[in-house]
Amino acid sequence: MRSIRWDEESRKLMIINQLALPAELRCLEVGSYTDIMEALESRAVDGASALAVCGAFALYFAASEAEMREPTALRESVCAAREQLMRLLPNAVNLRALTAGILRRAQTFEGGAQELPAFYLQQALAAAEQDLEASLSIARNGAELLHDGDEILLYGNTGALAGVDYGTAMGVVRWAYEQGKRVHVYMAETRPRLQGSKLSAWELEQYGIPYDVIVDAAAGYLLKAGKVDKVLFGAQRVAANGDVINHIGTYMLALAAYDNGVPAYAAFPLACVDFDSPSAGHASLEESDPSEVLSIRYYDSATAPKSSRARNFTLDITSQRLLSGLITDRGVLYPPFFRNLTVLKQYGRDE
Amino acid sequence: MRSIRWDEESRKLMIINQLALPAELRCLEVGSYTDIMEALESRAVDGASALAVCGAFALYFAASEAEMREPTALRESVCAAREQLMRLLPNAVNLRALTAGILRRAQTFEGGAQELPAFYLQQALAAAEQDLEASLSIARNGAELLHDGDEILLYGNTGALAGVDYGTAMGVVRWAYEQGKRVHVYMAETRPRLQGSKLSAWELEQYGIPYDVIVDAAAGYLLKAGKVDKVLFGAQRVAANGDVINHIGTYMLALAAYDNGVPAYAAFPLACVDFDSPSAGHASLEESDPSEVLSIRYYDSATAPKSSRARNFTLDITSQRLLSGLITDRGVLYPPFFRNLTVLKQYGRDE
Repeated sequence: MRSIRWDEESRKLMIINQLALPAELRCLEVGSYTDIMEALESRAVDGASALAVCGAFALYFAASEAEMREPTALRESVCAAREQLMRLLPNAVNLRALTAGILRRAQTFEGGAQELPAFYLQQALAAAEQDLEASLSIARNGAELLHDGDEILLYGNTGALAGVDYGTAMGVVRWAYEQGKRVHVYMAETRPRLQGSKLSAWELEQYGIPYDVIVDAAAGYLLKAGKVDKVLFGAQRVAANGDVINHIGTYMLALAAYDNGVPAYAAFPLACVDFDSPSAGHASLEESDPSEVLSIRYYDSATAPKSSRARNFTLDITSQRLLSGLITDRGVLYPPFFRNLTVLKQYGRDE
Repeated sequence: MRSIRWDEESRKLMIINQLALPAELRCLEVGSYTDIMEALESRAVDGASALAVCGAFALYFAASEAEMREPTALRESVCAAREQLMRLLPNAVNLRALTAGILRRAQTFEGGAQELPAFYLQQALAAAEQDLEASLSIARNGAELLHDGDEILLYGNTGALAGVDYGTAMGVVRWAYEQGKRVHVYMAETRPRLQGSKLSAWELEQYGIPYDVIVDAAAGYLLKAGKVDKVLFGAQRVAANGDVINHIGTYMLALAAYDNGVPAYAAFPLACVDFDSPSAGHASLEESDPSEVLSIRYYDSATAPKSSRARNFTLDITSQRLLSGLITDRGVLYPPFFRNLTVLKQYGRDE
């Protein structure tokens, strides 16, 4: 199973439609720039790595649809497409880095306008391949931390659906399970969009990993009761000191783990680290559509009075002091995170 | 508006049906012991004080339906009814205390079996009156802590619906608002049963108090961002040292408040204090029907794969060290809670 797969024959990108899960496994067939922007906007695809890879394909579609006969004009048209992407997803730092790298390389591409689309496609395919490799490295590196019999608390959408395959935090658990370690997962439902119960629980079912869904607010109880050995989550963006910007609720979860001496790990590819931000203290965070809080989305079930107002905070910041380690594609890092992340960075980073 | 009201003419207890809210304001007409047990079991009524008052009426219904001609036999039949109640609600400590007091006073009641039902009814009516008085005292005492312009984070079902009227934590906010203090409430939805968005948001609408619903996991973000001045919640049971057993999620919320220096208060009648428990460290806590986690109850909307398993932890323990104060009907208490609760206890407690 690949969540995002290029079909050479139809020249379409096949994306598992997250909106149809868990009821149905259905693919979106994405054949144009409009299609992919719709998929991103509707959140049919979500997860930092999945968004980045789709963004790379968005550049390809933009290039293939541009009618410019001149390479510079075509490149400018792809640039405009990228700006539209970044307006839609301002916090997607690896999408930003990945697409910036592609544009940079396109600058030095020496072919004509007719050959540029194929160049962008090759870049997007390479990005997908690199994402899969990073996920597999995260999974292998993190699986070392898990022991036979571990009770693991997972948060958010961090499996295959969050990238091309394997993902981040859930990939770690999946690798450990495939190694024969008997683990059990407490899967937090992850309100408001319920990625935990709708997507991650569905994935855990596919892999045969035993799990129980819990409400997000139950994590503290489980941690305090000594029922959890490790807490794992992903990261949408990481500051240079290890502060993690991730799905709303990550901070409370990491804090409760810390308060009970249970190790908490963020798992992410090094590409998620924003080395220009020394800490995440003053990050400006997105707010999403309030209707997600007032209903169980895609089921049209109101959960509050019709006239009721809501705020839908999307992300929060988890201070690095609450984290035991960072599981990356370049190895597991321990404090001091600033020094250790910087060292990794200096030892090279693909782009 | 009274959530629980005895109608003398029909000899029925009128209870606002919490299962019908927020869509509809509907009353259950409870005319028998079976009726009231059904109301409790279906959770049409919930909230520590509301349960206690209903429990007192349950004893009356049991007495009025018993066909014993002999006071001792009738009292034993009422005792059996109470045991059934306590099996249904093992953690309802004020229900336990309230009904124990009624049974004790029934022991010394000198009338015949025919007069006993009227005695139990009078006891239940007095319990409802005392609950309302306690709620008003909590509201008045707590309102002193709130200032004009305060941003308040509320959790759970702590308003009129949780008792006879006013309730606990929301009663405090309501009183402050009625005093003319301009407050705004962030209302946590309170999964899994969504009492926050279904019941409390509905109540806030009735009172005209401005509010926004948030998902429970967003509380940490708001606290860290400095957007909250006070955190308020209720208590189902309180240990002698001030440890609070309350709706699942209270612990994570209080911890996040503490981590950000925002005062957190538990509001409850002194009758909720279990002076026999020095702390809540080893309390055994209920687990509820897992289907509540896997669906948005009463809307029949699955939120997870059909075959998925869940655990539904109902309550958690909030260590007294995380609390700034306890708002009770006898005044606001500050640390050291053990000493200050004990002093209050020694200065008399109705029963």
